[in-house]
Amino acid sequence: MTTLAPGATIGILGGGQLGRMLAVAAAELGFDVHIYTDEIDSPASRVAARTTIASYDDAAALAAFAAQVDAVTFEFENVPAAAGDALLAVGAVVRPHPGALATGQDRLVEKRFLNDNGVATTPFLAIDAAADIAPALAELGAPALLKTRRFGYDGKGQSWVGAASEAASAWAAIGAQPAILEAAAPFVREVSVIAARGHDGAVVAFDVCENRHANGILAETLVPAQVEARAAEQARDSVFRLMTALNYVGVLTVEFFALADGGLLANEIAPRVHNSGHWTLDGASHSQFDLQIRAVAGWPLPQPTTLGPVRMINLIGDDVAEWAQFAADPRARLHLYGKRAARPGRKMGHVTYLSDC
Amino acid sequence: MTTLAPGATIGILGGGQLGRMLAVAAAELGFDVHIYTDEIDSPASRVAARTTIASYDDAAALAAFAAQVDAVTFEFENVPAAAGDALLAVGAVVRPHPGALATGQDRLVEKRFLNDNGVATTPFLAIDAAADIAPALAELGAPALLKTRRFGYDGKGQSWVGAASEAASAWAAIGAQPAILEAAAPFVREVSVIAARGHDGAVVAFDVCENRHANGILAETLVPAQVEARAAEQARDSVFRLMTALNYVGVLTVEFFALADGGLLANEIAPRVHNSGHWTLDGASHSQFDLQIRAVAGWPLPQPTTLGPVRMINLIGDDVAEWAQFAADPRARLHLYGKRAARPGRKMGHVTYLSDC
Repeated sequence: MTTLAPGATIGILGGGQLGRMLAVAAAELGFDVHIYTDEIDSPASRVAARTTIASYDDAAALAAFAAQVDAVTFEFENVPAAAGDALLAVGAVVRPHPGALATGQDRLVEKRFLNDNGVATTPFLAIDAAADIAPALAELGAPALLKTRRFGYDGKGQSWVGAASEAASAWAAIGAQPAILEAAAPFVREVSVIAARGHDGAVVAFDVCENRHANGILAETLVPAQVEARAAEQARDSVFRLMTALNYVGVLTVEFFALADGGLLANEIAPRVHNSGHWTLDGASHSQFDLQIRAVAGWPLPQPTTLGPVRMINLIGDDVAEWAQFAADPRARLHLYGKRAARPGRKMGHVTYLSDC
Repeated sequence: MTTLAPGATIGILGGGQLGRMLAVAAAELGFDVHIYTDEIDSPASRVAARTTIASYDDAAALAAFAAQVDAVTFEFENVPAAAGDALLAVGAVVRPHPGALATGQDRLVEKRFLNDNGVATTPFLAIDAAADIAPALAELGAPALLKTRRFGYDGKGQSWVGAASEAASAWAAIGAQPAILEAAAPFVREVSVIAARGHDGAVVAFDVCENRHANGILAETLVPAQVEARAAEQARDSVFRLMTALNYVGVLTVEFFALADGGLLANEIAPRVHNSGHWTLDGASHSQFDLQIRAVAGWPLPQPTTLGPVRMINLIGDDVAEWAQFAADPRARLHLYGKRAARPGRKMGHVTYLSDC
């Protein structure tokens, strides 16, 4: 059981805003950070002691990186299996273990894993060809949602199927690749549970977050979520059970659909810090980034407390042009990610409001 | 009036823990940071996008640095006048203006500035030679405190004089240099006011902090301070008046002695973020580092609010060896500065406790 002392170096795969906020959390605890990214001038590298710029499948660069750090973590779930293998091959301490990523990288494996561990999801069927869609739609009911098994995020790789006649176009829309078809979930709101598990197996969780999306991208998070206490407790227990089943070390997020009857259906797992947890930087005793770094370091995890009602809004694309308005609002806690260009759909920053939101 | 937009680069003179916490605050607002330090592998450079390692009196290096940043600030008050001159000579935006530093760099000038602006201090006299000490002691009363006019901090450059017979040894102890002799202040506690003034002239202040020292170094800060509301208000007004007199832009700290009768005597000015304000990272809506960066950027300054009773303890020298104990305490907000060696008297980190302290 590796425990890192202050002064150790934590390696982070990924140079985006999650890596940036992880790097700051690591620095606050006295760690050095080494970013590994394929991007020049990445947001994370600008707050880190060192950066390696190389491809995520460059085994030699990964081995050299591993030799310079005391533990490795990552900011995104689609780490190539080869990268995890390359790191483990040279004996790197990788938290969470790359094996835990595989489950979340394939929606079919993920859904089955959820169900196998007693966590309900909306009904789904595997789709391996366009011809599979019509019979699946007949079984699940229309409309249903076609999703690629791999590499989907922020609403990408998804297509609604309203009728069997749309099967071919939906199949083409997602790139004609292995997929699942999901029954529509009659949800009244979306919530997420962000939890963390330490190297000692102890688990902690933040209060359940309520999330509002626009164009498939998270727009707003509210805490506390409008869910019954018993449902929230069950959701947290589900996530704890999943983390234990994966022998997971670090922060893990599960998104749920909340139904009109108060029930929750798990939607997907993200084996990392999550956009819906950005409020914890201002609204909790410890942030999700702080907990991730503590877990990576093998430190005990504190149970975070929420400081009051919180509202987090994402600044997407040109939203960031309004920075001066947020800078002038004493209630707004402004966070900007240092991205050079505000492309449509790009997450540029976020703003948190406490208490009087 | 220069206003910096996110993406601009803020230059910071100094690579210590204050520079490190300023760099993190700047990153959170979307700025890049360029550290200028004479230290290799400094704590601040490890969280900054760029670093220049050069002497503080290297005019060419300072000019090159100035050309790469959009505004300059500093983490320490003893910036050589030549450095300020070199930066201004090439048209750099420097906040606060280097001219405002001169006042705080000389204890005699500083005390006179305080008195001239209606801020009471303990009685003092200028000492230019050992022979000045005995008559000054007769006038001020024994014991009195001999302090070098320049380059004193954390209790350095000070010597108590209990009787005229100790004049020569005290003079030698402070290095036989221009000094002041101060009457002993019969204080019951020490407090500080940390305030900020924006480029628009607007002023804000944190709640008054109560400070406990050990071996001349800050050991502990408590907020709120045990001072009467009227005295606290007068102290804040004094600091606002001083900042306005200096046409100051940025965070400025004034330390006061609190007397048994509730009165306050100003002790010294620090034209920068201050150790007694580290609690604001966890215990206030906006930290002193955030306010300094906003002031440097020409942004409006929010009035910070305190989140509850706060206790901050410094980790000095070997105190930091207890890091695992703080890491395991969910109530402790641990901050470590990334310093490689824990020398006696060296500030290695701090811990903040909220509410239940």
